[in-house]
Amino acid sequence: MPDTTNNPNRKTWLEVAPDSDFPIQNIPFGVFLTRDDVITIGTRIGDYAIDLGALHQLGYFDGIPLTDDIFLQDSLNDFISDGKKTWRLVRNRIGDIFDADNAALRDHKEHRERVIFTLNEIEMQLPVQIGDYTDFYSSIEHATNVGKMFRGEENALMPNWLHVPVGYHGRSSSIIPSGIPIHRPQGQTLPAGADTPVFGPSKRVDFELEMAFITTDANHLGEPIPIEEAEDYIFGVVLFNDWSARDIQKWEYVPLGPFLGKSFASSISPWIVTMDALEPFRVETPKPLKPQLEYLQYTGKKSYDINLEVGITPENGEETIVSRSNFKYMYWNMAQQLTHHTINGCPVNSGDMMGSGTLSGKTPDSYGSMLELSWAGKNPVKLNDGSERTFINDGDTVTMRGHCKNEHVRIGFGEVSSKLLPVFQPKKK
Amino acid sequence: MPDTTNNPNRKTWLEVAPDSDFPIQNIPFGVFLTRDDVITIGTRIGDYAIDLGALHQLGYFDGIPLTDDIFLQDSLNDFISDGKKTWRLVRNRIGDIFDADNAALRDHKEHRERVIFTLNEIEMQLPVQIGDYTDFYSSIEHATNVGKMFRGEENALMPNWLHVPVGYHGRSSSIIPSGIPIHRPQGQTLPAGADTPVFGPSKRVDFELEMAFITTDANHLGEPIPIEEAEDYIFGVVLFNDWSARDIQKWEYVPLGPFLGKSFASSISPWIVTMDALEPFRVETPKPLKPQLEYLQYTGKKSYDINLEVGITPENGEETIVSRSNFKYMYWNMAQQLTHHTINGCPVNSGDMMGSGTLSGKTPDSYGSMLELSWAGKNPVKLNDGSERTFINDGDTVTMRGHCKNEHVRIGFGEVSSKLLPVFQPKKK
Repeated sequence: MPDTTNNPNRKTWLEVAPDSDFPIQNIPFGVFLTRDDVITIGTRIGDYAIDLGALHQLGYFDGIPLTDDIFLQDSLNDFISDGKKTWRLVRNRIGDIFDADNAALRDHKEHRERVIFTLNEIEMQLPVQIGDYTDFYSSIEHATNVGKMFRGEENALMPNWLHVPVGYHGRSSSIIPSGIPIHRPQGQTLPAGADTPVFGPSKRVDFELEMAFITTDANHLGEPIPIEEAEDYIFGVVLFNDWSARDIQKWEYVPLGPFLGKSFASSISPWIVTMDALEPFRVETPKPLKPQLEYLQYTGKKSYDINLEVGITPENGEETIVSRSNFKYMYWNMAQQLTHHTINGCPVNSGDMMGSGTLSGKTPDSYGSMLELSWAGKNPVKLNDGSERTFINDGDTVTMRGHCKNEHVRIGFGEVSSKLLPVFQPKKK
Repeated sequence: MPDTTNNPNRKTWLEVAPDSDFPIQNIPFGVFLTRDDVITIGTRIGDYAIDLGALHQLGYFDGIPLTDDIFLQDSLNDFISDGKKTWRLVRNRIGDIFDADNAALRDHKEHRERVIFTLNEIEMQLPVQIGDYTDFYSSIEHATNVGKMFRGEENALMPNWLHVPVGYHGRSSSIIPSGIPIHRPQGQTLPAGADTPVFGPSKRVDFELEMAFITTDANHLGEPIPIEEAEDYIFGVVLFNDWSARDIQKWEYVPLGPFLGKSFASSISPWIVTMDALEPFRVETPKPLKPQLEYLQYTGKKSYDINLEVGITPENGEETIVSRSNFKYMYWNMAQQLTHHTINGCPVNSGDMMGSGTLSGKTPDSYGSMLELSWAGKNPVKLNDGSERTFINDGDTVTMRGHCKNEHVRIGFGEVSSKLLPVFQPKKK
């Protein structure tokens, strides 16, 4: 059963701006609260949010094997568990319903009013209940840059990096949707030259420009996934800001890896863009610099050309774009990451999330973190208002955007945006 | 409202062996499948499993604020969310119901038959749906031993270890209850002297003797938990075998920490022993070797005297106890671990699990892993049947047990036991 949604010539009867991230060829999935305070699964076309729970109740998905309440849920997990065939049937049907030539909903005012919302009428939620979250470290430029700063030029890229898609388990409970502000974390740091740590607010709060993919139920305990099957278990992709406190991270991370320097917050964009929507934007993964073990070898184009940018907006100020990068720079692709993750028999379930690691390009203006952009604070980044940043200030909002574009169509992710508030102050008792 | 269950003089009308881990003073919580294939929350007294769902339906918990289906669930998460006061009310009530002098259930044959099962009639399940799992590294002997082997004598204990309760995020999806066999994992390892890794079965599969605590909903994003409140959020404790593949771990773990060397499986004992049951066994935490930052300072006895042992049983063979250790050796106690975990604002929820890290004592016969017992394979461990082990062989069953004991009562955990099977063989297509 082929995907029919990507037809670049299709028009919709909804109004869509020409540069929208969400043309009728996109059809992402998310979860939102409606104006009636009902939680539902939905999609987005242009600047309209569409209530799939209501559409289903009205019979628009008849003929597709779906349970009655599949969209009336506070997460996409059960829908994602239904598998790739069902995702595609639903996405194709949504494309049909909103096709310019399809009068069924277009000319049914009462149904339209029940199903279609403007963005200011809804509140986006976390799209999945994330069971386990893993973060990879798959940009060679980022790994090299950080290695130089944390361990020196000689030990920059560890000996395992070109063989292993290095990753680590992250914290699910602090993953939040775009729009939720966060507090500057406190913790232990080691002042320069000191041998005893101090406690206080992190002085080096940073973003990490990442993307993350969401999986479906992939395997049982003990059973690895062969690389040729890996893509079948990837539902879609979101933008991901893996907030980091560099000074906390630096003091804590040897030998067991990042912990509190990461787990205070991680923000994702609320609309999951499906792999089917990204299909036209496949590109080759960068050529390996060393031979890779057989279980990681693959054929075909397994990377995606997704333009990314990061902006910083000071309190009451204007935005400065501080980095422009691309998802295609990833040295290890998603199929390799997922295959590696299960090679030891580790089970991957519906709603698990895997981050790419910071996506830095080769040139300094494409670095995906302030750590790299300011080179550990040595070269402050100038903002449009004349102020400078080495890391993120209280009151700053960090916004990441991403989109693919070819001569026919633009498929985008919207944004993940969150504001850094000062350290949390407990209420006096 | 005090705990009344620990009264050491209380007897029950159920038959309980004198050396049972589960006298009427214990009353742990677990989840099981009954002979009628119904899943329920239950407790255990002696060698009887008690169906709390059925007891509740029969009105035995009347007067305690509980939803009707609180025990008819496949996990304890919602019950744990009800909070410490409710746990205690329920535990006290169970103590009353089974008190030797209480005739209500004792003399009601029909109710007894509905509520009480023998252990061979039930199948224990994972007691909680684990949202996030963190593993600490809180035994100074283990951290020092591993450090010597992985990084050499000079870098054995990292500079942060005496200041930070070091921990890392682990994988929830591969946590399984006692009794589930596991497969030997495959992965990348670096042969001695080589500079290119090979792929194959791990040659160094190991156990780690740990305990783990289960939390309730503790805090919101951004809000740390003060150390004097931390214990209120700990529901109870289980035995924990953190299976490890040392050769995979060694190659992958720098710089982001353990990943596939751990995530193939981790086994827990199925009965969660409550903190109330452990109250009589509080002891002092070992004195800090260096001053600790204020947010980690506490008063009172915050460690627990729990005897632990590990046995290896070869296929069709007899068991050899290879290690005897104790939970009280932990340098950082649970209150410090939980406080540290939230100091950056990381949310902790009902059903989260936090491991102690391997619990090694000072003497070689108390080391909590084969890595240490065989000193990285140099000194094989002799089993009773004359065979030797450096790590775990295919067909071996590893069993961990734990109990507290004073002049009045023994409170135990039962066991966590799992068998290592050979590498998984995919079915031919």
